[in-house]
Amino acid sequence: MNTIGHLFKLTTFGESHGTAIGGVIDGCPSNLKLDFDFIAVELDRRKTAQSETTSQRKESDHIEWISGLLDGITLGTPIAFMVRNDDCKPSDYENLKDVFRPSHADFTYEQKYGLRDWRGGGRASARTTLPIVVAGAIAKQILKGKGIQIVAEVTEMGDAEQAKNEGDTVGGIVECRIIGVPAGLGEPMFGKFSAQLAHAMFSLPAVKGFEIGDGFALAKMKGSEANDTFIVSDVGLKDAGRGTEGIEICAATNHSGGIQGGISNGNDIVFRVAFKPIPSISKPQQTVNRAGEACTIAIKGRHDVCALPRAVVLVEALAAVVTLDLRMMAKQLSLVGG
Amino acid sequence: MNTIGHLFKLTTFGESHGTAIGGVIDGCPSNLKLDFDFIAVELDRRKTAQSETTSQRKESDHIEWISGLLDGITLGTPIAFMVRNDDCKPSDYENLKDVFRPSHADFTYEQKYGLRDWRGGGRASARTTLPIVVAGAIAKQILKGKGIQIVAEVTEMGDAEQAKNEGDTVGGIVECRIIGVPAGLGEPMFGKFSAQLAHAMFSLPAVKGFEIGDGFALAKMKGSEANDTFIVSDVGLKDAGRGTEGIEICAATNHSGGIQGGISNGNDIVFRVAFKPIPSISKPQQTVNRAGEACTIAIKGRHDVCALPRAVVLVEALAAVVTLDLRMMAKQLSLVGG
Amino acid sequence: MNTIGHLFKLTTFGESHGTAIGGVIDGCPSNLKLDFDFIAVELDRRKTAQSETTSQRKESDHIEWISGLLDGITLGTPIAFMVRNDDCKPSDYENLKDVFRPSHADFTYEQKYGLRDWRGGGRASARTTLPIVVAGAIAKQILKGKGIQIVAEVTEMGDAEQAKNEGDTVGGIVECRIIGVPAGLGEPMFGKFSAQLAHAMFSLPAVKGFEIGDGFALAKMKGSEANDTFIVSDVGLKDAGRGTEGIEICAATNHSGGIQGGISNGNDIVFRVAFKPIPSISKPQQTVNRAGEACTIAIKGRHDVCALPRAVVLVEALAAVVTLDLRMMAKQLSLVGG
Amino acid sequence: MNTIGHLFKLTTFGESHGTAIGGVIDGCPSNLKLDFDFIAVELDRRKTAQSETTSQRKESDHIEWISGLLDGITLGTPIAFMVRNDDCKPSDYENLKDVFRPSHADFTYEQKYGLRDWRGGGRASARTTLPIVVAGAIAKQILKGKGIQIVAEVTEMGDAEQAKNEGDTVGGIVECRIIGVPAGLGEPMFGKFSAQLAHAMFSLPAVKGFEIGDGFALAKMKGSEANDTFIVSDVGLKDAGRGTEGIEICAATNHSGGIQGGISNGNDIVFRVAFKPIPSISKPQQTVNRAGEACTIAIKGRHDVCALPRAVVLVEALAAVVTLDLRMMAKQLSLVGG
Repeated sequence: MNTIGHLFKLTTFGESHGTAIGGVIDGCPSNLKLDFDFIAVELDRRKTAQSETTSQRKESDHIEWISGLLDGITLGTPIAFMVRNDDCKPSDYENLKDVFRPSHADFTYEQKYGLRDWRGGGRASARTTLPIVVAGAIAKQILKGKGIQIVAEVTEMGDAEQAKNEGDTVGGIVECRIIGVPAGLGEPMFGKFSAQLAHAMFSLPAVKGFEIGDGFALAKMKGSEANDTFIVSDVGLKDAGRGTEGIEICAATNHSGGIQGGISNGNDIVFRVAFKPIPSISKPQQTVNRAGEACTIAIKGRHDVCALPRAVVLVEALAAVVTLDLRMMAKQLSLVGG
Repeated sequence: MNTIGHLFKLTTFGESHGTAIGGVIDGCPSNLKLDFDFIAVELDRRKTAQSETTSQRKESDHIEWISGLLDGITLGTPIAFMVRNDDCKPSDYENLKDVFRPSHADFTYEQKYGLRDWRGGGRASARTTLPIVVAGAIAKQILKGKGIQIVAEVTEMGDAEQAKNEGDTVGGIVECRIIGVPAGLGEPMFGKFSAQLAHAMFSLPAVKGFEIGDGFALAKMKGSEANDTFIVSDVGLKDAGRGTEGIEICAATNHSGGIQGGISNGNDIVFRVAFKPIPSISKPQQTVNRAGEACTIAIKGRHDVCALPRAVVLVEALAAVVTLDLRMMAKQLSLVGG
Repeated sequence: MNTIGHLFKLTTFGESHGTAIGGVIDGCPSNLKLDFDFIAVELDRRKTAQSETTSQRKESDHIEWISGLLDGITLGTPIAFMVRNDDCKPSDYENLKDVFRPSHADFTYEQKYGLRDWRGGGRASARTTLPIVVAGAIAKQILKGKGIQIVAEVTEMGDAEQAKNEGDTVGGIVECRIIGVPAGLGEPMFGKFSAQLAHAMFSLPAVKGFEIGDGFALAKMKGSEANDTFIVSDVGLKDAGRGTEGIEICAATNHSGGIQGGISNGNDIVFRVAFKPIPSISKPQQTVNRAGEACTIAIKGRHDVCALPRAVVLVEALAAVVTLDLRMMAKQLSLVGG
Repeated sequence: MNTIGHLFKLTTFGESHGTAIGGVIDGCPSNLKLDFDFIAVELDRRKTAQSETTSQRKESDHIEWISGLLDGITLGTPIAFMVRNDDCKPSDYENLKDVFRPSHADFTYEQKYGLRDWRGGGRASARTTLPIVVAGAIAKQILKGKGIQIVAEVTEMGDAEQAKNEGDTVGGIVECRIIGVPAGLGEPMFGKFSAQLAHAMFSLPAVKGFEIGDGFALAKMKGSEANDTFIVSDVGLKDAGRGTEGIEICAATNHSGGIQGGISNGNDIVFRVAFKPIPSISKPQQTVNRAGEACTIAIKGRHDVCALPRAVVLVEALAAVVTLDLRMMAKQLSLVGG
């Protein structure tokens, strides 16, 4: 269950303060010259210490490429890679070893597995999302060659500076747009584009909500307000859906967020992801320790005030992985009569 | 991609006006005496014509059990079942054959597959959700034996009676609660309980939003407000997570909706699903036909004003399928040292 | 686990004397006009009572097509179908209800599931292979359009007529040839063409051996005898592997059976499947009943003397399903640079 | 497709002369104290240079454990590990860069992927089987705790010493026995124990045949000779199948090789795997280069004369992975009524 994707598959591994964090990409097309500079740029977008709102852990994020490449070109075999956990300070966490931090995964991991890696969140740490960025960068590179782009941004965020002073944290919302998706991607009934995006986004730490198009606002609309009428496009959207050769059909509005019946309609795919505040706050909190005794905890260490700035590239990366996977799946269609 | 689940798997098939709608359940434990009365009750909850807000299509919903049972007891082999589409009026849809209904899946299915079953929505029809109810009822029966219950309700809905008079439709929100889930269910990184619930819910027609716990509201909170502190329970929650033998630990609040780090924490799992209004409205709308010509459409026929009343049992059913699947997966844990 | 395939997927259901036997094909390309006559011909090849060596059960094998088709054309949605079990005589099996027939699946099913459908072998009956023939016929039809043909034959069989007189049964070997497979199909490490063929063949009842190319004989050869040298082909094999544009490369011999490193090399794929004798013999045998008492059994009823004549089409059908699945998977390759 | 298993899953990566060879085990039960000594012993059994018949490449096989462990105890999270490729001599292979070695995977990889890692066989090298041994050792450790043991041996092999002098190679047969398997493991129709073993074995390089029980010999037998009659056991096999509480039922003979209807019957599971001779021979051979020109090749370097001695541990390892996976799957059974 540490794998996402069907044809373009990413398996991730690693704990926050273990030897390394990494992944295996199985199913990447061969003969692709990887754009290592772009991958580095994407990793920088995720890296800590990038701003006032994120933590001070220095992550060099130097990728060791282990397999699947010859002279920087993909072989079609599994691409394994990892980043060592250099700047670890397990001692920062020694005092948390026997305490269940509120709204963290300490308690649930211990319940599930009978033990947990208490050093910095272990497998549940946000650091474990690093391999997603690598896979996402590769997926983006391939999608770009198909005219598909993915752009996310923070559209809502609490007052981080104030929260920092108070020893508190804030949450927010990331909105993402997938541009240039041809009509016809998505696999009903249980592989809908929207369902796979939701699944992917809820794989990120701290995600608590997902909506597509007008999302929850649609619950308050009437059908006549919510429906996207089709029009014949004058200008001609490249790659958009076509009803008849040479005639461009598209939706005039986009309440649906580019997906109808689980399948892309050629409009931009637009979705929003809600992140709860990071649960690591330095304000004292009541909790319980492993012995079942009530105690107080104040979480010190190098923690972000807000996950949102880093989350942008993660949302994009997973959107890229899902889109590429569905794009590869759609290739099968041409088998008959082609 | 018409399959959901990993150990308890449901594959569905059927178009709205084809021969039948049905499913195959693979992985149902053997030696279970199916509660056919309960299955019938659940199907009745989904059936059309049940109220003012739903359509007039008469669905007898008589299940033909095809395999997997001997004297009503599960054999452990695939359980195939189907319900014939008796009260079909394909002629109702003849005029829609060449028109793309706004915000329906007509256009996207045709883009994806090159053709579509135009009779009543075909595979994209809400009728295709029927097998989900059957699988859900079986899953609920098994979960009940484990002390797990699932209850959903409509918490928000537009004014259906007014919309009906206007030839319009309304959307709304269903809230669902999974009660009695032991701590420890869910499979990080890409099989989180929350992610699988989101995936399942987005498999339902018209779903556009999903949130768990306080969901989108968490984006506006501070960590100190959003965190769920742990307490030692006096009363003792049955089946709840335990830190130490004999001591009950639980979260005092439930902003997280019962899931932390993708794993259940023993609290109730609470989530909300946003449904857009049904796109079939009798009000005239602008659209485009298959020849690429602009045209006007007024959708007649037997359509619901609101999907919400029927959606309640669907949300519960998919929640049951996901929960049972994760419960079965968790059994592997006991292999070591047990 | 009642599903085979990754993109072209077949799920089967049904017990020998239940309501029906059937299947769901998920992933069949859309817009294919099914050749129902061909499917009927293939089913006839499997049908009982076709010769002296097979049993007298009359199987009408009338297929009910339930979903996935509009006017005989595939919609791209799941194709569900079934054949009713008309000529059932459960009473023939009443006396077997509490006895474990030697080398049958009675004992193992009961151990696994705690109960079993004792009527005619239930899920373990050879009748449950019927849906494989249907899926195979569809796969063959698609493959034919790609220049790929599959032909099997019985190459070894015991003396059936003598065995019949003795109340005994015989086994044998089926050899199968897949012709016209382009080089490059197969997915290392764990999705090798040979591995998937072996897996598929061992899904058939009574299969106890599988070898590809020279198979077990290779164990006795030297490398210099076993190796297939490459040559430049004069005539030019259509669809064969090419080293350089316009130059045909192929293996001069075929000890490898068309597969090297798990991937097709453009030569015919040749494999053999060993079937044990059908275990249902009318000769008296010692065995044990469910009460744990030793007893004697003589299996009466309508049983084949040899499964081989029917097995030919089954071997071909599964070979077709595997080949098509791998052919669809190979389409992803063209995503980069094309 | 570089993954094997359903609940206990191994994904492998790496090319022969790349940075490293490794794997990710996803689904290993938590709280298992790994027996590193045993893993080292198993790796030694596979290592080159161990005898006269195997090659001179020095493989230190030092495992770097990357994730999934805390103080040597499994966390339940993915266990990633790798072994660096230290003693590489890519220059040995420089002259093979543009030549297709007969019966190697050079040609097929190049056809499939459009390029290949020519250094020492790349992904198709026998070295890539190393991670299988690691996963197998862990699986064996868990199975041992359940009373299940796996023992393989070479039962047939050509004259290696003579072949060595002639610049040739030999093949052979490995027989494997899985002892102590309880009745009831295996998942019909397409997850049969036999089918999964066959699939796994054909994932090994050079495997060309697989048979279970009496295998191909059964094709020549009559039913009365091939059937395994059931008896009531006096001594009582621990963990064996039981028809009635307290009464031991088992098969008196084992022509079936411990599997009937795809499910274990409590007898030892016995199967044989045929390996072709290693195709790397120093005798000159005719072949074709990438330019499509006929040429002669004599393969020098450090190659085994026979793969069999190393193959023994590989066969055992994959048998262990398959058996454990099926054992974990069988745990679901107890969900009802327990």
